Amino acid sequence: MSALDSKVFRDLSYGLYIVTSLDGERHNGQLVNTVIQVTSDPARVAVIINKKNLTHEFISKSRVFAAAVLDQTVPLTFMGPFGFRSGRDYDKFAKVSFKKGITGAPLITEHVLSVLEARVFNEIDLGTHTIFVGDALASEVLREGIPLTYRYYHEHLKGKTSPNAPSYAAPR
Amino acid sequence: MSALDSKVFRDLSYGLYIVTSLDGERHNGQLVNTVIQVTSDPARVAVIINKKNLTHEFISKSRVFAAAVLDQTVPLTFMGPFGFRSGRDYDKFAKVSFKKGITGAPLITEHVLSVLEARVFNEIDLGTHTIFVGDALASEVLREGIPLTYRYYHEHLKGKTSPNAPSYAAPR
Repeated sequence: MSALDSKVFRDLSYGLYIVTSLDGERHNGQLVNTVIQVTSDPARVAVIINKKNLTHEFISKSRVFAAAVLDQTVPLTFMGPFGFRSGRDYDKFAKVSFKKGITGAPLITEHVLSVLEARVFNEIDLGTHTIFVGDALASEVLREGIPLTYRYYHEHLKGKTSPNAPSYAAPR
Repeated sequence: MSALDSKVFRDLSYGLYIVTSLDGERHNGQLVNTVIQVTSDPARVAVIINKKNLTHEFISKSRVFAAAVLDQTVPLTFMGPFGFRSGRDYDKFAKVSFKKGITGAPLITEHVLSVLEARVFNEIDLGTHTIFVGDALASEVLREGIPLTYRYYHEHLKGKTSPNAPSYAAPR
């Protein structure tokens, strides 16, 4: 084995989440496939965000983020703005139900199974992206359901991948 | 929202992998739910390993690791030793088909859809665990199939979680 076959990366499994943060009174959020629990004692979670994204700027400044686990029944039209529009020229929260968390980050309450909030504990610069590792401060199950997976999003919903995603492969 | 409800962490989605490494002529590997692609240019992957595990010692020393994506049809008996035995007192590779990768790490070839190898580029100390981030050096699809997910492992195969996993929640 000596070459890099990018098809291998399609065999890795992920969920699909909306990661949110804030800058003062401004809220922003974006679709993220990489939200993972990294330790259980204490409970810590990691998220990976592209440096170009406004959410990256907000997390870097506020040092907090929230993640919402999408329900498998979420419509593509709900996710669209979070995946393919920038909060720099569009208020993604104008028509979305959310409540403010203890960190101040917006917690999305529609089409979402559960939410968690974290304060950044450490980070790794990955070049194009940053891994933010946070201490989980609060979390809540909003409803029962099947969490949306990245595979289901692609295969059943025919969703697309943003060029800013960690897993992006340019069409050939 | 002010309390931490650990049930939220069950809503996060993962695959299930065997991560391997080496120390000279010795090979070791273990079940890992946290193998993710973190950037695409260059292609980098992250794995999270418990510091108590021999695989952690091997990756820390050799600075390389491989990951094998398990096929959904893999029997529990095949995974068992990789999840619940230590390489310190048991040779997990004695009865397992594998080939040596360009990094020297063993690439498991049975019950596996694809394999990749990486060289550690950076790491974060998480207390009980370490995130190793590696540059993907080589990867290969071995066969078509459905990748095993962590959810399928728990719900259909009735698999258990090792106390050393990042997602472990002690039974109550």
